[in-house]
Amino acid sequence: MNIPAENLASSVYLEDTASVHLNFSMPMQQTVLEIIKTRRSVREFTAEPVEHSLIEQIISAGIWAPSGLNNQPWRFVVIRDSSLRERLAELTKYAHIVRAAPVLIAVYLDQEKMYDRVKDHQAAGACIQNMLLAAHALGLGAVWLGQILANKDRVNEALGLSGQHELAAVLALGHPLHRNQQSLRQPLETFILHEFGENNP
Amino acid sequence: MNIPAENLASSVYLEDTASVHLNFSMPMQQTVLEIIKTRRSVREFTAEPVEHSLIEQIISAGIWAPSGLNNQPWRFVVIRDSSLRERLAELTKYAHIVRAAPVLIAVYLDQEKMYDRVKDHQAAGACIQNMLLAAHALGLGAVWLGQILANKDRVNEALGLSGQHELAAVLALGHPLHRNQQSLRQPLETFILHEFGENNP
Repeated sequence: MNIPAENLASSVYLEDTASVHLNFSMPMQQTVLEIIKTRRSVREFTAEPVEHSLIEQIISAGIWAPSGLNNQPWRFVVIRDSSLRERLAELTKYAHIVRAAPVLIAVYLDQEKMYDRVKDHQAAGACIQNMLLAAHALGLGAVWLGQILANKDRVNEALGLSGQHELAAVLALGHPLHRNQQSLRQPLETFILHEFGENNP
Repeated sequence: MNIPAENLASSVYLEDTASVHLNFSMPMQQTVLEIIKTRRSVREFTAEPVEHSLIEQIISAGIWAPSGLNNQPWRFVVIRDSSLRERLAELTKYAHIVRAAPVLIAVYLDQEKMYDRVKDHQAAGACIQNMLLAAHALGLGAVWLGQILANKDRVNEALGLSGQHELAAVLALGHPLHRNQQSLRQPLETFILHEFGENNP
């Protein structure tokens, strides 16, 4: 019997709900696929503040992403302070988005938890995706900002963090000003290189 | 007026559903958060094959992840063939999982599309997370296998791929043999380094 590796690395039992809700109904299945496909990068926000409880739900969704060896390397800084947002705005060419968003969440990797740079950044991506989906489901808008990594050392300085924490991305969040965002994808067949199948039902 | 960068890189209009379903109802919101929190890494499968249409839905969920500059760098190889699965099993210490899974999906990054190694691997993580959530919502089980990257060149060789494609992960999928998986997370406060807020509602 193999004990899953992801169960070994962590000592604190927080939540386990796997044994309930074994079968999601068809509408529930469709909800998830729909949330995934209707999520858009939202870059314009109303001035309305974002409730603290929503931010907690979003970060909580993030930490339920999988990570290699279940090392849970992600860390977060929540920024509502407008002078600090202005300081961060000056570190990216997407300054207008950072200024307009009532909340920023800087997503970090803790180098003391990291074990493989590629896999840990993949885990950051999985975590961020959970957060974006949760934000969308909760009626908020969000955008994943990566260009600011060009100044990641200065972001750390602004946030009072040492080199132990490596910036992975900044999420800008708020109530969407509108829902006009469009996005495009290549057709599915573009992405499938090969199918090796003996018994495709 | 800023045209979102992600709309510029892609020429094919596939689907746009953002303007419908603006407000998800409370049960729908909860469904998404529940899918996120009840997803587990499933490593034991029944022998039942996985319908082709489910694999398509899972990959389709994957490509609706965001990517830097909307470069959509991910590519997929679907593997059902048992001799090929055996060949891949020999390239990882999780051979028993690869042998037991009726379907594998190898997730690749196309180096001709990549623009930033860290951000592209984050995008792979976001894509994989969408796929894992879709699989879970559809009643399947899946696990994200990273250890096989130790032999990624030999995986390429087995799948007939050149160095243009970089292996990001292999997903093993099937109908779950059971639902006994547990997983643990540190408490939420472990992950939040700072909150800078002027007006926390």
